[in-house]
Amino acid sequence: MPSPEEARELTRRTVRFEPDGVSVAVSAGSTLLAAAAAAGIELRSACGGQGTCGQCAVRLLDRPAGPAPPGFPVRLHRAGYVPACKTTIDEDLAVEIPASSRQVRHEVLLDDDEATLLAEEQVSLLLGYEHRPAVLRQIVRLEPPSLEGNADDWSRLLSALRQQVPEATDDRPITATIRALAELSATLRAHGMQAAIYVLDLPAGLEVVRVLPVDQAPPPLGVAVDIGTTTVVVQLLDLEEPEVLARAGTHNRQSRYGDDVITRIIYAAEQPAQAEQLREAVVSTVNDLIAQALATAGFAGDDILVAMVAGNTTMQHLFLGLPADQIRLEPYVPVATNYPVSRASELGLTLHASAAVIQLPAVASYVGGDIVAGMLASGLADQEDLGLFVDIGTNGEMVLGNRDWLVACACSAGPCFEGGGITAGMRATSGAIQSITIDPETLAAQVRTIGNSKPAGLCGSGLIDCLSALRVAGVIDRAGTFQDSGTACFREGDDGPEFVLIAGDESASGDDIVVTEADVKNLIRAKGAVFAGVRALLAAIEADMDSLVRVVVAGGFGSHLNIADAIRIGMLPDVPYERYRFMGNTSIKGARAALLSTQAYRRAQELASAMTVIELSLGSMYMEEFVSALFLPHTDLSLFPSVEG
Amino acid sequence: MPSPEEARELTRRTVRFEPDGVSVAVSAGSTLLAAAAAAGIELRSACGGQGTCGQCAVRLLDRPAGPAPPGFPVRLHRAGYVPACKTTIDEDLAVEIPASSRQVRHEVLLDDDEATLLAEEQVSLLLGYEHRPAVLRQIVRLEPPSLEGNADDWSRLLSALRQQVPEATDDRPITATIRALAELSATLRAHGMQAAIYVLDLPAGLEVVRVLPVDQAPPPLGVAVDIGTTTVVVQLLDLEEPEVLARAGTHNRQSRYGDDVITRIIYAAEQPAQAEQLREAVVSTVNDLIAQALATAGFAGDDILVAMVAGNTTMQHLFLGLPADQIRLEPYVPVATNYPVSRASELGLTLHASAAVIQLPAVASYVGGDIVAGMLASGLADQEDLGLFVDIGTNGEMVLGNRDWLVACACSAGPCFEGGGITAGMRATSGAIQSITIDPETLAAQVRTIGNSKPAGLCGSGLIDCLSALRVAGVIDRAGTFQDSGTACFREGDDGPEFVLIAGDESASGDDIVVTEADVKNLIRAKGAVFAGVRALLAAIEADMDSLVRVVVAGGFGSHLNIADAIRIGMLPDVPYERYRFMGNTSIKGARAALLSTQAYRRAQELASAMTVIELSLGSMYMEEFVSALFLPHTDLSLFPSVEG
Repeated sequence: MPSPEEARELTRRTVRFEPDGVSVAVSAGSTLLAAAAAAGIELRSACGGQGTCGQCAVRLLDRPAGPAPPGFPVRLHRAGYVPACKTTIDEDLAVEIPASSRQVRHEVLLDDDEATLLAEEQVSLLLGYEHRPAVLRQIVRLEPPSLEGNADDWSRLLSALRQQVPEATDDRPITATIRALAELSATLRAHGMQAAIYVLDLPAGLEVVRVLPVDQAPPPLGVAVDIGTTTVVVQLLDLEEPEVLARAGTHNRQSRYGDDVITRIIYAAEQPAQAEQLREAVVSTVNDLIAQALATAGFAGDDILVAMVAGNTTMQHLFLGLPADQIRLEPYVPVATNYPVSRASELGLTLHASAAVIQLPAVASYVGGDIVAGMLASGLADQEDLGLFVDIGTNGEMVLGNRDWLVACACSAGPCFEGGGITAGMRATSGAIQSITIDPETLAAQVRTIGNSKPAGLCGSGLIDCLSALRVAGVIDRAGTFQDSGTACFREGDDGPEFVLIAGDESASGDDIVVTEADVKNLIRAKGAVFAGVRALLAAIEADMDSLVRVVVAGGFGSHLNIADAIRIGMLPDVPYERYRFMGNTSIKGARAALLSTQAYRRAQELASAMTVIELSLGSMYMEEFVSALFLPHTDLSLFPSVEG
Repeated sequence: MPSPEEARELTRRTVRFEPDGVSVAVSAGSTLLAAAAAAGIELRSACGGQGTCGQCAVRLLDRPAGPAPPGFPVRLHRAGYVPACKTTIDEDLAVEIPASSRQVRHEVLLDDDEATLLAEEQVSLLLGYEHRPAVLRQIVRLEPPSLEGNADDWSRLLSALRQQVPEATDDRPITATIRALAELSATLRAHGMQAAIYVLDLPAGLEVVRVLPVDQAPPPLGVAVDIGTTTVVVQLLDLEEPEVLARAGTHNRQSRYGDDVITRIIYAAEQPAQAEQLREAVVSTVNDLIAQALATAGFAGDDILVAMVAGNTTMQHLFLGLPADQIRLEPYVPVATNYPVSRASELGLTLHASAAVIQLPAVASYVGGDIVAGMLASGLADQEDLGLFVDIGTNGEMVLGNRDWLVACACSAGPCFEGGGITAGMRATSGAIQSITIDPETLAAQVRTIGNSKPAGLCGSGLIDCLSALRVAGVIDRAGTFQDSGTACFREGDDGPEFVLIAGDESASGDDIVVTEADVKNLIRAKGAVFAGVRALLAAIEADMDSLVRVVVAGGFGSHLNIADAIRIGMLPDVPYERYRFMGNTSIKGARAALLSTQAYRRAQELASAMTVIELSLGSMYMEEFVSALFLPHTDLSLFPSVEG
């Protein structure tokens, strides 16, 4: 009989990952995906381990691939790949991981590049709201106590704060943490009864959370956090100046459990430990970014006393550890939209333990705090004229309205614009094609890539350009069907007809970069979903397209989106270009303003309660609009007068 | 060279404790006190390890005691004892621990014995205040959500609470913990949209902290906690009924670091680790009592959602981990008197993690939350007539006043009345003499002991009786000087003249029970301090003794104090007996009412701010009164018309 230790040893298998040359010992029966994670290699996984997306494809080096699991892309199986998520380890193995299966630290739109986005009209940090930050630093000097005046330190501090701090009006309670009280007395006495007092200005009242000697007191710091499904962005702010001290961004570590919110919700709902994995994944992502920002700016985690978090409703639920399952189930009732203030220590964030973690309020299951932050940043709700806010990511959310009313909706655009579900799709990292033209004669493509590297694939803005260019060049008809002209660019691939955009000798990988007919149909469905949403909102208030005086485009496209192409494919309304405005990541901009201005935060709460959400699945109107939008640019050409049919 | 492990082994010494027969290995250089603690034997230690009180005296079995450390009682040194706290371990040792050095689990006045204390006028749980407990249990049933009405669960719960709960007025914010929100949705859906909601009613607003299925929902529970310097008492309450479900009490585990507050403050101020030891000692004491009460009542820690804590200002500071050093240093400024609400998880209490831990407000460094609770319980502040509240423990605190004004003071009575600093003093445990008479002819003592056991020593009420009896029998004169009549009862001891109260053949230990002249002087100083305090308060408002219409006596004496004797020795004012009222532990009674009635808690806050503290060390008046009170009953006999000179 083997000892328990020997028995455990007997069930260990070694996996070597190439070209990394890294080996790891795991229990027999583990998946290759888990083994790679154990070896510190993060694989992509859009489907959340279902074996269907093909993103985690790897090659077994010393045994054949065997039959393909159901749903695994045929072309990958033919090329000898297996899905790491569905391949269990029975014996010692050597595995090759292609570059395309690795999770890439991609360039994240940290908030703007205001320079490129809004040269003329800079987006101010405060967005026009009063500078009333969520944390105040107050220097107090108390009278030395005497036997005649020996009130306790806290009472005397309270009197001083009531006198000094404009926010400390009589009707607002002032409290303190025990830890801050413990710091108070020693600091006062060692420093001539003077101290720097840090006060949180929360909806429920004021709270003293930190006391320091005046000469060691950093400015009050806060972080604005945007938790996107794909990327997470953090900005570290000096709330007093106010000023952005550092920016950091990376992909959301939850991506290993699925690319889209639905996959993650299902994963989290399977068992509590999995919900906790998702929570930890995003918390560790945020913590890493905060650490990075702190290192850049030269401060410590204890110096950050507040975090303002924006994100879609699913991200906010998973971040707080709230059950998210109801978000995907009719009637789509989230646990909460107005989240209570929590503490850094409660959530495991590496800020000051008492730091307040405040969420931007959401509106509904698919109109989250990111959209409320975006509306705050857009300023559209302060205008008399009609405006449209469109945030395009995996979901397309949009808000239509003015200072009197707001209607909102969300439509599933799918992962195309984030580079998912498209043969040559990729995120906006080095080598991604951002813009493209196709010569109608030769069908040769002219591309511009991020970093001017050899092209590796197409990111969101490149795909929109590409769809437009294919149509202009006559490669596809209005329905997206290939018009095979007999040139070598057209061929039959594993997944049906495909068009070679870039030949292998010019591409980064050496393989041809192709667009399949299925890719084109996918893109048309995605753009159709967005446009049908716009139409549904307009229909709800019986307005026509031309009444849109301002269109704010938010989201990862940033300044790269070619508005002419987006109109030409029928994704965005055909109104004059000058009515369009790109604002990049409006979620972080709104969160930042809410951090710097309690007035802005209150306005965000007002906006959230003012928005009426149109449930697109009710009635047949949206579906009819969607079907009509499945043409380039649209079934009804009168909607796109500037586009030739 | 020895390995690090061997080196560590080389510095280990073994100590065997007798008569327990327990051995323990400790590092060379440790004290015997620490070694005993490591062996699970708790020694007494009034001086907090200074080597002066003699309470931790032990005998070395295989080597001589050596010279006495400075301050160690001569009589103990002569008898071969050493102080365990000052004896370091250089070699393997065998040590004998006498019974008198052991910390005794003594009988704690759990709150009353209302039967004996107040036969006619029972103290009601609510003390006449409205029943508005600090935690509410609310059964809600929400409408099932639909696509047309798909507001989030928390919004819908909020509407229901606003409608159902009288306390949820529009001006009061309602919030929730993240954990409660996480419980909410699943509970609602698994139980037909019904749930039991537990809501904290805090000064800052209402807070949902727990959600349970209706059929698994216990009544809302709370604990009232009285943290005394010597003893800690806990009562577990069903807040809805309202009803006391269980009572538990024991000695404060901090006692091992010193008997009185000053010794503990000094110990805590020496280094942060020692402050943390004190905090942990009291927290573990409270946790043990809570566990005991829960076991009795058959509930779980998670069912307790609020704790209401009373204690003197030092106890409250040490319990919260606040620096207490300023309490003992002029001008006696505590960190806080109005403590913020904290959470069980923050303090390490084994209640529900989100349970609110609320402190009764204190008034000043030596007039704490226990006195505020006591005044609440006494009802004196609601009367038109003048009343006096006296709480006699190590400190004597007293409050004088009526419904219009209140003055308070604290005087150091010393540890006598808790059985400390007196040769035969002991706490009110089995064998303690509670009352005594001495035959003026034979000088033979007649005693009554707790549990009717053989007498072991004198507790507080016994000492007051004893002082009175010694005077009545002519053993001492008015100044407390022995009047040696030549009988065998008088003799010269190690510490000067002593009087043998009980001969060894009748005592529990077999040793004579004696009272020394020094003991008598000590007791006179203690009673003098109390009476001088009463006089100082009366002088402050220019009232005479006879205007006292009601005198409430609180504290550990309970019903055992003989009021005639207390007047005869000049400790309490000479007013008719029927004006006196014993209320036992008023601190726990006040805490209990504050838990059951937010109205009572607000009243406690009013009382705390209404009390004017007379600082006795200011001016010479108190010292003059004290000196005048160092006679039996007093220098000015006109103050004690009922007592013969």
